[in-house]
Amino acid sequence: MENNKYSTLQELIENKIKDINFKNEPHLLYEPARYSMSNGGKRIRPLLTLIANDLFNGKVEDAIDVAIGIEIFHNFTLVHDDIMDSAPMRRGRPTVYKKWNTNIALLSGDVMFGKAYEYISKVNSSKLVNVLNSFTQGAIKVCEGQQYDMDFESTTFVSIDEYKKMISLKTGALIATALQIGCIIGSSSIEDSINIYKFGENIGIAFQLQDDLLDTYSNPDKFGKITGGDIISKKKTFLYSKSIELADENMKKQIVNMYNDDTINNSDKVKNIIKKYNELNIKSITEEEIKKYYEEGLNYLKKLKVEYNKRKALEEYVENLIVREI
Amino acid sequence: MENNKYSTLQELIENKIKDINFKNEPHLLYEPARYSMSNGGKRIRPLLTLIANDLFNGKVEDAIDVAIGIEIFHNFTLVHDDIMDSAPMRRGRPTVYKKWNTNIALLSGDVMFGKAYEYISKVNSSKLVNVLNSFTQGAIKVCEGQQYDMDFESTTFVSIDEYKKMISLKTGALIATALQIGCIIGSSSIEDSINIYKFGENIGIAFQLQDDLLDTYSNPDKFGKITGGDIISKKKTFLYSKSIELADENMKKQIVNMYNDDTINNSDKVKNIIKKYNELNIKSITEEEIKKYYEEGLNYLKKLKVEYNKRKALEEYVENLIVREI
Repeated sequence: MENNKYSTLQELIENKIKDINFKNEPHLLYEPARYSMSNGGKRIRPLLTLIANDLFNGKVEDAIDVAIGIEIFHNFTLVHDDIMDSAPMRRGRPTVYKKWNTNIALLSGDVMFGKAYEYISKVNSSKLVNVLNSFTQGAIKVCEGQQYDMDFESTTFVSIDEYKKMISLKTGALIATALQIGCIIGSSSIEDSINIYKFGENIGIAFQLQDDLLDTYSNPDKFGKITGGDIISKKKTFLYSKSIELADENMKKQIVNMYNDDTINNSDKVKNIIKKYNELNIKSITEEEIKKYYEEGLNYLKKLKVEYNKRKALEEYVENLIVREI
Repeated sequence: MENNKYSTLQELIENKIKDINFKNEPHLLYEPARYSMSNGGKRIRPLLTLIANDLFNGKVEDAIDVAIGIEIFHNFTLVHDDIMDSAPMRRGRPTVYKKWNTNIALLSGDVMFGKAYEYISKVNSSKLVNVLNSFTQGAIKVCEGQQYDMDFESTTFVSIDEYKKMISLKTGALIATALQIGCIIGSSSIEDSINIYKFGENIGIAFQLQDDLLDTYSNPDKFGKITGGDIISKKKTFLYSKSIELADENMKKQIVNMYNDDTINNSDKVKNIIKKYNELNIKSITEEEIKKYYEEGLNYLKKLKVEYNKRKALEEYVENLIVREI
């Protein structure tokens, strides 16, 4: 039954996204924004807002605009991240800056940030201060996470702690914020809103670790990305940082040299790095780590004073997101 | 007396800007934001917020955080505009993207947008909805104006109407919004807040026309910019668009060809274009136009139901901004 409810909510989100009141002019400002929003994503964040609101028996109509605002913000970050990462493709389509150009992606992103606030501001005025503060702090954390991620580009070694701090900001913070805002709109207790935030932060980290894993180990036909993209772009992923942490001096040198070698072709590089990862058992170590964060998250979820069935449905939804076929 | 008050407010703004709670880390996120905020600008927008609030006897402490938020937003737009315009210098210093790089300027700008909302959100909760809506709509208009300005780069002819629409969004909207938000915080009537918005929009247009004029006709030692920068970067300014409107077919061809000729050196190009402008009397036509918008603005200002002395002081402040020595 809860699953049916989730599908209904997902449909509502998709319809509301189609209805976002982007103007027609200036065309090169709003067309890329529309394109960015029609990306066929899973809409995890707005759904989590609606689910969290429902946990406390809040009404969908009180949370839907804010949920859409969070999704607009999320897509804005993708538009700007793709510029910074020089990423040509996203979900099988050219990224905004590739389809148009950097300036257009930059400015369309900016207006999406403004639009996100337009939607956030539609919340009932009695909830506005708290929703706004939670959202703004979440947004700032996402920027901080992205900066740490960029810092890593010019760092040879990234410790596992630094890596986790980065993803807890870049990915964890918005998932956590989306959930917390749902709680605020649903008038939860402060305690519940803190626990749901921690649940979100942990599962956000789990999602990101899984993304790292899938980038290197997934079947490209299923995942829609080229396998090994992170290796090719020399990203300091969890897999890479963990391999550096675990390797002996000799192997460490080999991995670092191989990762930074621009003379060998990409597919050989990916193959060689994966071979090293396999020697160090990185795949199952990462899987264990994902499980650890997922379970840590669940511990916080279990603390919520909400209906068992509703909590269980959220647990199942998140579990399905985590256990993706590789 | 009011002038003394303005200096006190300006000092307060400067001190509050120094106190903005940017974190230290990530360093490459917040250092460029701090640098951008310490630009020695005239802080016109936050001052207008405080003045408008004072017109209705609002308290400074109720408006100062919002005023700072508006200034942070304004500086964010400069950071991003400088990327889009490839502008190497601003107020005698390298622009953020030149001093660091494009990605850093992009992301620092984003976090400044978030910080702007953090400060806007500090307003008394009874005013929050209205202040927020006014600010967000202003922010969106600024993006629209910047997009129209970028559109002009690939357009040979920009009509005077199109040009004015662009600057009323890019420059007028934020000046108008800064004033209107001051009104809202000062609990003005709706009528007064509409009139002050129109006052702001008109003087914003006057400011921008004056900027166009100064760019081409000012003494570089006084103005701090290279004379003719707009001509060198082929900007579709009011002066250019007006000259195209007024020139006969033959002269029009000459101006267009000269403006787009990459083979002649910059100083000759500037000299030749100014010669054409002079033949068409563009300098005094622009001065007339500035006066027209300034006076149109004043008509709206005069409608406000506020103390005569306070209104007069605002009028003088704006007049001093407009009549800059060329």
